[in-house]
Amino acid sequence: MTRYRLTVQYDGTEFHGWQKQEPPGREPLRTVQAVVEEGCRRALRQPLTLTGASRTDAGVHAVGQVASFDAETTVPVERMARAVNKWLPGDVAVTDARVAPADFDPISSPISKAYRYTIHNSARRNVFERNYVTPFAWPLNAEVMNEAAKHLVGTMDFTSVANINHGKESAVRTIFACGAKREGEKIVIDVEGSGFLYHMVRIIAGTLMFAGCGKIKPEEMPGILAAKDRTKAGPTMIAAGLCLMWIRYEGD
Amino acid sequence: MTRYRLTVQYDGTEFHGWQKQEPPGREPLRTVQAVVEEGCRRALRQPLTLTGASRTDAGVHAVGQVASFDAETTVPVERMARAVNKWLPGDVAVTDARVAPADFDPISSPISKAYRYTIHNSARRNVFERNYVTPFAWPLNAEVMNEAAKHLVGTMDFTSVANINHGKESAVRTIFACGAKREGEKIVIDVEGSGFLYHMVRIIAGTLMFAGCGKIKPEEMPGILAAKDRTKAGPTMIAAGLCLMWIRYEGD
Repeated sequence: MTRYRLTVQYDGTEFHGWQKQEPPGREPLRTVQAVVEEGCRRALRQPLTLTGASRTDAGVHAVGQVASFDAETTVPVERMARAVNKWLPGDVAVTDARVAPADFDPISSPISKAYRYTIHNSARRNVFERNYVTPFAWPLNAEVMNEAAKHLVGTMDFTSVANINHGKESAVRTIFACGAKREGEKIVIDVEGSGFLYHMVRIIAGTLMFAGCGKIKPEEMPGILAAKDRTKAGPTMIAAGLCLMWIRYEGD
Repeated sequence: MTRYRLTVQYDGTEFHGWQKQEPPGREPLRTVQAVVEEGCRRALRQPLTLTGASRTDAGVHAVGQVASFDAETTVPVERMARAVNKWLPGDVAVTDARVAPADFDPISSPISKAYRYTIHNSARRNVFERNYVTPFAWPLNAEVMNEAAKHLVGTMDFTSVANINHGKESAVRTIFACGAKREGEKIVIDVEGSGFLYHMVRIIAGTLMFAGCGKIKPEEMPGILAAKDRTKAGPTMIAAGLCLMWIRYEGD
């Protein structure tokens, strides 16, 4: 058996998220995992199980999701992406396939992950990118947002910017980089970290949006994080604006 | 009564083209004209009829379609776009509304129209722009395409690059500008003219694509046009790559 590693790109609009969902007595939901797994099975003509690094929510997109599976096949790895893509619909594609070490685990071994959140900051609708942005008409100050973003960099407890019910696991994570910049009518928020808690990037985006319209001052950010209180931060922004950009592993 | 002029933007993917279609005994099809007309009726609370400048086909997009209607209303023109947009779904928007001369006719009076055709020239799929481009894996030479495009500029009979059955009307039109350029993995073809025949831009795109992969030499273009023979030109490219960019009228 050989372990393969795929990079997967998808428009999350028409998917019920990454993870397979097979409600008892009902049709399985259309998920990225189920669709790509089926594509791999057909291309390699064997049963296999696909493991994804990140369980993205419904409506969330990915430029560089990572997934792995084990198989024995005569399909050369350099032709594998193309072979699988033949069986995939237009809103998902394998952009890279390679042989991984036998112990490669996409879930537990990432060194860093990067997400991008995009706000269309205009009173005009963005007809052509509507599924990839969050519309927000009130003018946002991207420089203030970027100022606030700097306070998120470091190793700390991110309870304030996550939706956690139980509180059993540690909420300590490391953010390596976080910034916001204006690109025309869009505001792009980039976050890179060791790992992310549930809804963490969407809440960071909501908190920076609050900073951008003056509801939160950048210098209040350390206090918000220190409070370990979800109610101190901004709202959870909608899924459509979020995109998983890349995941990096040891040796990449 | 006042005549109003709207600029309308839409993602044509989920529409059966611009023009209303109400097949007898069946549900009316989802068309841009029907959806925007209904939005105007609701916003202005009166029956009205919308006339569009260009009857774009199913799947064709528009950044600047122009439409007009007559109404008596207390809604100020500067708030009209916003009022109508409240009643429109996410894949269509009114981007401008203004008062037009009483004799303004969007169909017969344009001075020029501009279309853009986009080819995604890569073996990779374009997951996020899949509805706005035509995929074409074979490498195209954009400079040769641009060379061929120059031969389309002028006033002449465009029968060779149109799908015309009857041949009763004149196929003489004027193309003011036509060019192709590479933008990363995309090839963008821009055409500006006095008016266009059925499928004309899509066939021009197919003919330039043939030039870009060496099947047609730029210097063969005058002969192809002079033949007034559809079979001499390239294929009709798919609707998804086509976008109506703008329409200009006297006084604009």
